[in-house]
Amino acid sequence: MHPIPSGTRDVLPDEMRELRALSNKLRQVFEDHGYGEVYTPTIEYDTPAIRLGGDAGVYRLFDDHGAVLQLRSDITVPLARVATTRYANVEPPLRFSAFAHVYRGVRPHRGQMREHLQAGCELIGSPSPEGTVEALTVLCRALDATGLRDYRIGLGDASMYPALMASMGVPVGRRQTLLDHLMDRNLVGLERDAEGLDPLLVEVPQRRGGPDVLDGLPGGEGLRRVHEDLAPDIAERVIFDLGLVRDLSYYTGSVFEVYDPSIGAPIGGGGRYDDLMGQLGRPMPAVGFQIGVSQLHEALATGERTA
Amino acid sequence: MHPIPSGTRDVLPDEMRELRALSNKLRQVFEDHGYGEVYTPTIEYDTPAIRLGGDAGVYRLFDDHGAVLQLRSDITVPLARVATTRYANVEPPLRFSAFAHVYRGVRPHRGQMREHLQAGCELIGSPSPEGTVEALTVLCRALDATGLRDYRIGLGDASMYPALMASMGVPVGRRQTLLDHLMDRNLVGLERDAEGLDPLLVEVPQRRGGPDVLDGLPGGEGLRRVHEDLAPDIAERVIFDLGLVRDLSYYTGSVFEVYDPSIGAPIGGGGRYDDLMGQLGRPMPAVGFQIGVSQLHEALATGERTA
Repeated sequence: MHPIPSGTRDVLPDEMRELRALSNKLRQVFEDHGYGEVYTPTIEYDTPAIRLGGDAGVYRLFDDHGAVLQLRSDITVPLARVATTRYANVEPPLRFSAFAHVYRGVRPHRGQMREHLQAGCELIGSPSPEGTVEALTVLCRALDATGLRDYRIGLGDASMYPALMASMGVPVGRRQTLLDHLMDRNLVGLERDAEGLDPLLVEVPQRRGGPDVLDGLPGGEGLRRVHEDLAPDIAERVIFDLGLVRDLSYYTGSVFEVYDPSIGAPIGGGGRYDDLMGQLGRPMPAVGFQIGVSQLHEALATGERTA
Repeated sequence: MHPIPSGTRDVLPDEMRELRALSNKLRQVFEDHGYGEVYTPTIEYDTPAIRLGGDAGVYRLFDDHGAVLQLRSDITVPLARVATTRYANVEPPLRFSAFAHVYRGVRPHRGQMREHLQAGCELIGSPSPEGTVEALTVLCRALDATGLRDYRIGLGDASMYPALMASMGVPVGRRQTLLDHLMDRNLVGLERDAEGLDPLLVEVPQRRGGPDVLDGLPGGEGLRRVHEDLAPDIAERVIFDLGLVRDLSYYTGSVFEVYDPSIGAPIGGGGRYDDLMGQLGRPMPAVGFQIGVSQLHEALATGERTA
């Protein structure tokens, strides 16, 4: 009776109260670090710029004037747009945060949500390593403020595998297939389709651990510098993960994900998008992260139950 | 460069901070009165029940499975749905609040917003007059908490004009036209299309003022009882408005709107919807209200500037 779309849910008062409290703690840390909250519209024009956020067209709308719109699928691209339009004459770096629902396509049978609440920060106009260090710091301080204790940060570099493929002369036509397997963490597919290529292409993305896994790799120095500049309590949460490739196409350098032993899926993630601002007309390096508020809530609740 | 859809806007940090503070004040009053917050999905099936919220199909979506969805156009119907599904075995009255964006069609050139944030309460299972009195009380206590001072409550009855037309034998085919003029506050159209009918049909909806304007009218006793049971400081804000017809079709009895001298449009409104729960399969009387958070913010800001 009165079903709601798969991948959506009703949040009832007890949980809602906890989600609000959690959001308020995150928001306070973001504000304390200078990241003022911005709200951008849920309905957006379906433009090439917006399509950079991925998942284009999953939720296409037609309004009463016949215009084609789509639902916000990401908070990074809209905040980057605000930086180019509303802050065009403001000296960078710019710091923004957002708390907004994003709408994404789902793969049936995986229990994925179509609508989920993200809390995130964007630091626009600050290069690596210092920008990346700041983003990771705000991310960890925010998680710390919620009481999450045992989380780890997986840290990789979105440019590393493409550079590796290029340096090893992988034919251009085969590169996207290998990348797609990485995004899906599909090792079997990767091994099959890297047949006949340098074995490093299968070995490197399985490397996880301390700074030594970076030795001799393109992009390794950049990741090492980020790690060295982190506060000790944050640095010790980092696990280098050379197979980490986030599935948004705009990432250019360091990428990261937050894992907690209490739940299987990442709680959040982010990375550098040093080309996106240029595509929007105001070239600047940038980095950002998002936290899934419901995922964080679930991790905290599970952690309490098992503590 | 990078336009956003008309009727939507970016909210920047200074304003966002104020909107959050305002929402928190409203939420605290709602909680204090027992109205726990519920979040329902932004994307809904396009069902007859959802269509009761009006504006059906203005934002129709097609997802990647081909299902037809639409954007939340109202918070009353989704909360009524939650009352029938998730609280099916809970003894009424049920009290819920919501803070959510609603998406509506716009009339060009009027500066109307397609996306706006509503804060509202629904009291499900409480008849008139006591339910209506409680809703008006929570509404006014919430507005009081924000510091709004000079607001007035327009109070009318959605059943009054239809009853008047019926009692005067207005041909059924002409009734909707007259009602449409009332909704548009179009007196010229009303006079034209009521030509040859009882002059009371034009005179009554222009009555505004104290309880004496109710004399001898169908529904007048009900409104008078509501007024008598209100706390004195709330009762003195009430102006009876017999032309008040809210444009959502589910209202059955008392309807009200909040006006503030500092802005032209209503800040909020609500009313009784005693038939809606039955249409959803769980017959119960109900009443609710919504506050436009941006409209309230504007009224407060304008009031401060002119004070």
